[in-house]
Amino acid sequence: MKNAVGREIPDDILKLTGKEVFHGNCYYDGYEYKKAGPRIKCVIRSGGDKLVDSIHEVLLKCEIKDGMTLSFHHHFRDGDFIVNMVMKEVHKMGIKNITICASSLGKAHDCLVECIEDGTITNIQSSGVRGKIGRAISEGKLKGLAIMRSHGGRVRAIETGEVHVDLAFIGAPTCDDYGNCRGIGGKSNCGVLSYSVVDGDYADKVVAVTDCLVPFPNFPAHISMTKVDYVVVVDAIGDPKKIAAGAAKPTKDMRKLMMAEYCTQFVINTPYFKDGFSYQTGVGGASIASTISLARIMKERGVRMRFGVGGLTKPMCDLLIDGQADVLLDTQDFDLDAVESVKDLKHYRISAGEYADPFNKGAVVNKLDFVILAALEVDVEFNCNVVIGSDGMLAGAQGGHPDTAAGAKCTIVIVPLLQGRIPVIRTEVTAVTTPGESVDVVITDYGIAINPRRRDLMQCMEKVDLPFKTIEELRDIAYSIAGEPDRVAFEDRVVGIIEARDGTVMDVVRQVKPFVFD
Amino acid sequence: MKNAVGREIPDDILKLTGKEVFHGNCYYDGYEYKKAGPRIKCVIRSGGDKLVDSIHEVLLKCEIKDGMTLSFHHHFRDGDFIVNMVMKEVHKMGIKNITICASSLGKAHDCLVECIEDGTITNIQSSGVRGKIGRAISEGKLKGLAIMRSHGGRVRAIETGEVHVDLAFIGAPTCDDYGNCRGIGGKSNCGVLSYSVVDGDYADKVVAVTDCLVPFPNFPAHISMTKVDYVVVVDAIGDPKKIAAGAAKPTKDMRKLMMAEYCTQFVINTPYFKDGFSYQTGVGGASIASTISLARIMKERGVRMRFGVGGLTKPMCDLLIDGQADVLLDTQDFDLDAVESVKDLKHYRISAGEYADPFNKGAVVNKLDFVILAALEVDVEFNCNVVIGSDGMLAGAQGGHPDTAAGAKCTIVIVPLLQGRIPVIRTEVTAVTTPGESVDVVITDYGIAINPRRRDLMQCMEKVDLPFKTIEELRDIAYSIAGEPDRVAFEDRVVGIIEARDGTVMDVVRQVKPFVFD
Repeated sequence: MKNAVGREIPDDILKLTGKEVFHGNCYYDGYEYKKAGPRIKCVIRSGGDKLVDSIHEVLLKCEIKDGMTLSFHHHFRDGDFIVNMVMKEVHKMGIKNITICASSLGKAHDCLVECIEDGTITNIQSSGVRGKIGRAISEGKLKGLAIMRSHGGRVRAIETGEVHVDLAFIGAPTCDDYGNCRGIGGKSNCGVLSYSVVDGDYADKVVAVTDCLVPFPNFPAHISMTKVDYVVVVDAIGDPKKIAAGAAKPTKDMRKLMMAEYCTQFVINTPYFKDGFSYQTGVGGASIASTISLARIMKERGVRMRFGVGGLTKPMCDLLIDGQADVLLDTQDFDLDAVESVKDLKHYRISAGEYADPFNKGAVVNKLDFVILAALEVDVEFNCNVVIGSDGMLAGAQGGHPDTAAGAKCTIVIVPLLQGRIPVIRTEVTAVTTPGESVDVVITDYGIAINPRRRDLMQCMEKVDLPFKTIEELRDIAYSIAGEPDRVAFEDRVVGIIEARDGTVMDVVRQVKPFVFD
Repeated sequence: MKNAVGREIPDDILKLTGKEVFHGNCYYDGYEYKKAGPRIKCVIRSGGDKLVDSIHEVLLKCEIKDGMTLSFHHHFRDGDFIVNMVMKEVHKMGIKNITICASSLGKAHDCLVECIEDGTITNIQSSGVRGKIGRAISEGKLKGLAIMRSHGGRVRAIETGEVHVDLAFIGAPTCDDYGNCRGIGGKSNCGVLSYSVVDGDYADKVVAVTDCLVPFPNFPAHISMTKVDYVVVVDAIGDPKKIAAGAAKPTKDMRKLMMAEYCTQFVINTPYFKDGFSYQTGVGGASIASTISLARIMKERGVRMRFGVGGLTKPMCDLLIDGQADVLLDTQDFDLDAVESVKDLKHYRISAGEYADPFNKGAVVNKLDFVILAALEVDVEFNCNVVIGSDGMLAGAQGGHPDTAAGAKCTIVIVPLLQGRIPVIRTEVTAVTTPGESVDVVITDYGIAINPRRRDLMQCMEKVDLPFKTIEELRDIAYSIAGEPDRVAFEDRVVGIIEARDGTVMDVVRQVKPFVFD
């Protein structure tokens, strides 16, 4: 069955998952449902602690068994030790058929491929997968399905009960003996624990894993002791050097700086650029550069930002430090400056649910004026792909892309027209993750296309001196330079689905056919 | 059927409520259950606000109807306007058979008696009731049952689904147009919103009522926009003069000062009085005086408090200011100094659930060393009554009494031996609210009794120069002065139940017989 972005979703996948096809961003607006509830084991006795000696012992206490769903958060990014530490033990115990429900998985987790190959892990739910795991899934090694969810969509899936987490593992930079976790302090400081809040709220068993035990009460707790069953102290939960190394340095690439300047010029010519506006940007070089150039114009014109949201980096935190932004709302820290900034009294932690969940009573993304995003591919309907590489391999993550794009009044995607010799703007994307209805402007190094749905923005830009083109013109330029890209050859087998934030199917991920020379 | 504190609980009440009799504090320790979930109406569309013009309109939007359960919090105490504002409108609309589920009800709500009499309100669930409502219930005017719950017990009842709240009203000193509520700021500053956190989490519809609308985002939110359906702006949500007027001034009553001194001497001679101890005290004159005298000795001996908990007052906040306590954990502010202290970075808000809920994975009360409490009556089994006056009328509230008493390693109850001409220490209390197994020491102006269950404490006190007596001796002195009190004459009809924190029945409240002269 074809969905609202024109992707054919096989009926057997709809039947297997019980899902609907994507019907458009607001299809579920106003929908009523009953939230799920976890199983709780009461702790009424006074005193005591929840300390358990090892991961092995805590798995026994949690009565680990075949078929369980284990959840993890990704605030330690490429420096994460928790997933491997737990799964190594699960593997050793001979447990099979585990579903991993992670807020994201990355290069730190390459060694899980062994667990995928031998059936320890049979299902993966994540914002995305990179490195060897992505390749393993795309090559058909995962026995079950990979489900790629946005950050908001993950919260939705857990709170509706679509996913029931049996055991949640929360890596805590500091924790007390009763389970109060903070993202701050210790040797693996990651700033916030936003993605794991929903795990604490909905998992049956919650295990805090820390390498820095502190006196009770470790307040203000980012995850409360009231949600935590056990605390395990280990030598190290992460590699500090890799935790906050995600963000690009301010770019010197002239092409990126040019796109950043286009972006800033576009932003300031919209009606949303006024005192009290709100803003989010990604961590790409051009995005970061555009924050820096926007800050300059804000200062010149005396325009203040009411709130900045993210996935935060130094340039966003500088806005707070320089008094150009009233507050920051933080779900994740990409660099050490952002981790450090969490101490600022106007730098507030928010949960992934507060940030982006489409199934609560209103998330922060609904209040965004601007979001500046990147993409792997954009098609002529403005649909974006951020999950599958142009070679067909799973290699990216939805993150907050579909959430912020849907919420923001003005969604700007900055992409180079070509990535190497591969057209980024194209007739058809390899997979759709963010629907074109969410994307208002695409900025490339060869020109800027406004989504025809946004006549209002086109009107605003009538007298603005920027290289506007249609999206088809941009595609044609790309094709004229690099040729029309061949379609990736896929097998029939569906190895994963790309879920829309409301749980419908945006697209499927198919097994990649081994490349054969003609 | 007789329960663990020897109270006869009528079978028909057990049948009617589906409850068990109280079996002892730790009967439910380790019990597993599935948490309830509210019905949520998703807000996916971007932008917009949740503002509604009036209480009347919001009741219509929430589809108010006969038989619904409406919930309220009591942080505005005697200055609360919210309950009356909402119930006046419900009354005007002719809605009947409402259950009020309040964290507490007091003198501010006398006018609800009319709603009770005409069947608008037929059930009341509260920590306690004072003033005319208490009298109305004790006189049999409420058609259904009054259920008196501790602060922790209320959270338990809501999160287990025993009570399902249809509409929660949260009075918010400040709120933005998307429903982010804070207990801080505005003209009705109450400091914290701790009791209403569970309402936000579990009610189907949540209405924030504010008299101070502030720009989005009103962060850090004490109740998140993700829980709030509607925001109503009214002229005033409370009378600031009565909001924080609950606490007694430091007493000059020599009898209370003497009991306070006994208490301090007792505390410092226990093994729990050492660096890093934790402490909670009530708002009675003797309790407050004991905090002041304890602070003096802490300073002399260089003993620091790790954390103080409460229901907070100036003397507790002074410990923080003077650097004698590391942190304060706050559920309610009784005076303006406490409200002001919330701004201190080491003065942390906690929810009622974090504070005292017996059905989560461990509450703060479980970590208490000392709690200093008051009572209306204490029997020779150390059972306390804090809810029914010795005239048989409902006139008090459980508050956190049973929660902290159960949790603390050393629970001290300070009472005068006689209240006027009425023995406080007696063979039998008019009702049991806190079981004797929770109460370790009773301090009176005529002597101190240690609960025989606590041989360890008796041993600690062997060489301490305090006027120790048995509880029976204290009772005998009381009776020798004022005579043995007559039992209050009750009708057979049960008008309410006193719930133990785990939801079992601690005692029943019967209709009072009109007094007849012999």
